[in-house]
Amino acid sequence: MNGAESLQRTLLNCGVDTCFMNPGTSEMHFVAALDNVPGMRSVLTLFEGVATGAADGYGRMTETPAATLLHLGPGLANGMANLHNARRAASPIVNIVGDHATYHRKYDAPLTSDAEGMAATVSKWVKVSQSANDVGRDAAEAVARSVEPQRGVCTLVLPADTAWGEADGPAQPPPPATPMTIDTELSHVAAAALRGEGRHVLLIGGTALLSEGLEAAARIAAKTGAEIFCDTITARMERGAGRVKIRRLPYFPEAVEQTLEGTTTLVLAGTRSPVAFFAYPDKSSDLTPRGVNPIQIASPSDDPVSALRTLAEVLDAPPFKSIAQTACAELALPALPTGDLTVDNIGKTIGALLPEHAVICDDSATSGVQPFVHTATSQPHDWLLVTGGAIGQGMPVGIGAALARPDNKVICLEGDGSAMYTIQSLWTQARENLDVTNIVFSNRSYAILAIEYKRLRGTTPGTRAHDMLDLTRPDLDFVKMAEGMGVEAFRCETLDDFNSRFAYCMQERGPRLIEVILPPHRG
Amino acid sequence: MNGAESLQRTLLNCGVDTCFMNPGTSEMHFVAALDNVPGMRSVLTLFEGVATGAADGYGRMTETPAATLLHLGPGLANGMANLHNARRAASPIVNIVGDHATYHRKYDAPLTSDAEGMAATVSKWVKVSQSANDVGRDAAEAVARSVEPQRGVCTLVLPADTAWGEADGPAQPPPPATPMTIDTELSHVAAAALRGEGRHVLLIGGTALLSEGLEAAARIAAKTGAEIFCDTITARMERGAGRVKIRRLPYFPEAVEQTLEGTTTLVLAGTRSPVAFFAYPDKSSDLTPRGVNPIQIASPSDDPVSALRTLAEVLDAPPFKSIAQTACAELALPALPTGDLTVDNIGKTIGALLPEHAVICDDSATSGVQPFVHTATSQPHDWLLVTGGAIGQGMPVGIGAALARPDNKVICLEGDGSAMYTIQSLWTQARENLDVTNIVFSNRSYAILAIEYKRLRGTTPGTRAHDMLDLTRPDLDFVKMAEGMGVEAFRCETLDDFNSRFAYCMQERGPRLIEVILPPHRG
Repeated sequence: MNGAESLQRTLLNCGVDTCFMNPGTSEMHFVAALDNVPGMRSVLTLFEGVATGAADGYGRMTETPAATLLHLGPGLANGMANLHNARRAASPIVNIVGDHATYHRKYDAPLTSDAEGMAATVSKWVKVSQSANDVGRDAAEAVARSVEPQRGVCTLVLPADTAWGEADGPAQPPPPATPMTIDTELSHVAAAALRGEGRHVLLIGGTALLSEGLEAAARIAAKTGAEIFCDTITARMERGAGRVKIRRLPYFPEAVEQTLEGTTTLVLAGTRSPVAFFAYPDKSSDLTPRGVNPIQIASPSDDPVSALRTLAEVLDAPPFKSIAQTACAELALPALPTGDLTVDNIGKTIGALLPEHAVICDDSATSGVQPFVHTATSQPHDWLLVTGGAIGQGMPVGIGAALARPDNKVICLEGDGSAMYTIQSLWTQARENLDVTNIVFSNRSYAILAIEYKRLRGTTPGTRAHDMLDLTRPDLDFVKMAEGMGVEAFRCETLDDFNSRFAYCMQERGPRLIEVILPPHRG
Repeated sequence: MNGAESLQRTLLNCGVDTCFMNPGTSEMHFVAALDNVPGMRSVLTLFEGVATGAADGYGRMTETPAATLLHLGPGLANGMANLHNARRAASPIVNIVGDHATYHRKYDAPLTSDAEGMAATVSKWVKVSQSANDVGRDAAEAVARSVEPQRGVCTLVLPADTAWGEADGPAQPPPPATPMTIDTELSHVAAAALRGEGRHVLLIGGTALLSEGLEAAARIAAKTGAEIFCDTITARMERGAGRVKIRRLPYFPEAVEQTLEGTTTLVLAGTRSPVAFFAYPDKSSDLTPRGVNPIQIASPSDDPVSALRTLAEVLDAPPFKSIAQTACAELALPALPTGDLTVDNIGKTIGALLPEHAVICDDSATSGVQPFVHTATSQPHDWLLVTGGAIGQGMPVGIGAALARPDNKVICLEGDGSAMYTIQSLWTQARENLDVTNIVFSNRSYAILAIEYKRLRGTTPGTRAHDMLDLTRPDLDFVKMAEGMGVEAFRCETLDDFNSRFAYCMQERGPRLIEVILPPHRG
């Protein structure tokens, strides 16, 4: 077999059976191998940022990697912003980048570029295969490193001659890495602090926000009175009815400081001490409560679930069953709202009609806050955010989530500005007939920037600055754009209309888009 | 004044008055400065690849830089594919990337990334300003280095505190760099070879493809019988009636070898000896004619116009005036075609109706060949190509070209696959009311890949491979997408319809899109 077939068979041996791609000439042998090797689901995207975002969504939902297939350095470059988000989400991804044949590189043909250098900025592991025979082993290593010992983006650069050259055969998965050990000394330090007086805060992130971690955190909270918080921006959180109630830190630094004021003990699991998203003149970057020395029982690259469980044991915390009723949210749906078409009311409608086990991909900046609030006691669901701050991530992540969870509804919350970054996602949603409802909040501005402008400058923008934050002249028509990519779409200008369209989208399967017309935001 | 104002005033002092941007919070002070500093034309794009491509187009047409303003590493990443094209075009660009405040970087907030490392892969010069006071001097240096001694992408990373901090004031342009010297010894070597017997080929690139360089090349050809060729893919070529006739090397390597067969002397000015765009098993990468030792009188980073002029003098070549009539194309328009809607007929229509001094931005892969042929003796025009092979470049470059040449018609030739890469360009074309006609060749496939598949594999793709090259399921509707971004658009399914729509677009000013429905390509 050739290297391309060895790659496909190795990926399947290692459990990787989904590949998001936009290939080119240097990847044609990998594409050809699809016909020889059954079992790989290959999903075409019209732009690489869609492919990498989809792999991120898939990795977040399954905790196992999907592969990508990108076309040399420029294809990788187009996918890098969403790989940056994936890096921050610690998503497992096997990021495959085709390249010129090894012997062709020295001729510096037009597409020659430093793919390895680019990849290094967003990957935890980068390798360039040197021959067809190396491809299987390298691919198996990429899969293994993408999940162990911590998850992340592993980039494998495959020169074209490693695809068409002869290979011995596919590789088997390497033996699993040694599991991470828990620093029990730290657990005792944390336990001692939590047993003391004062305001105790348990700030958790990463996989600690899935049920098992949340349950361990709830046990600690029940025993010590600690309050459970998560970061402002998290990769994936299991929440809603029957899930452990926790609070989310706010976005702006002064609000974080206010929220955490009076904290005496800060225990961190799967995250770091809070920092400001951006710096502001004369404001702190480090948001650790004054005088507090945080105790980090698990860093973002450790295993926070085991660390929380160990801490619960050290504290002799009650079993989860005995505290579940108070720790968990009870199902309490907001009433279907009436009145004006506002983000708050839209949030209530989503909260009221959200189906069980939906996945919400929130790329909506200012507009996602109220929907998050109003779904706190809705049917159980997953909430995914833009971990790296690079917008244009929601609809691609929705593609990956929908493929990972074919029986669940996916809802993408998009700002108009965010949606335009990777609008090509809609075509792949249509092609794969994915069960995704996209909600675009058309406030016709980069509303977050109008707010930030005022915070930074103390004034509203002048005419020329405002123009750079404004999405009018012309207004975007997302219904036409969606229809142009084969996705059924609706424009809603009243709440009644939104309520009925959203209800329809929740009842029917398949991709749809609802454009919500909001008043333009002026900071 | 603050660093942001110092930046704007320095750029204006250095003649940079156009900035393509998609700013974020870390760039808000730069945006605010627009209201304090008159004279900077700021153009908002909905995606950074549009901004960088526009700067490339502007640079190619004016030979001076526009600026960009991008939002940290992820914004830069989104603009990198078109910066790769710009690097290959040797376009002058002052690529400004905002970043976190210097003191904020260590907190590794979500958007923190290695912007400098990313920039290094596509830039000839990268600098990170360290304080507000450095911004003016660094910006002046970036402008200077973007044009001297050779043109290219200069990236200036500006941490947010260099924008809001106090600065002494703007900088003045640095003294011009020493002009490049011409190696006259090489001119004599080339002259000696060209005076000998055999088949002489003069392969020219870069600025040698503008009138002055072409005229010098024509003098050499007239004296020595050398044939003038340019590379397959060139940044900008002045051609059509009244311009020097030259030939373009074909795309596929075996066709290049055939075209150059029997060459005994190969003189290179502003380019390198031809290489294959991609490697193919058992085919050469180096396409230098067998046994020929090329004489490079100017590399791509030298000044090929002066080198050609020097060579013409050494050869005692006749003055251009005396040979212009035979060297230049005479105006000869193709007849307006009748018959089927084919790429060949579309090429003839374009050739027949092309207005004087139009700028054609060709991002259409397979579909651009015939229009190139049929415009050879049309009204004089400029032809711009995807220099780095990264598709999604035509419509962004068209934005920059239209701003650089407000009195001339810009025509973007797009494949459907290419157009989808940076489809957001249409909104900026509408907002700025640019005089751009976009022609999308909807063959509903990555047609070039179907051809490449067959070349590489000797067969047509199987079902699953074909699916990755196919743009049906669903068909894209570019008319709806264009209308969704405020651009008037037409779908043409007959040649008559295309002829009348294209004629209308050439007569009226403003942005329009024509989607041409072609039969799907199967390799």
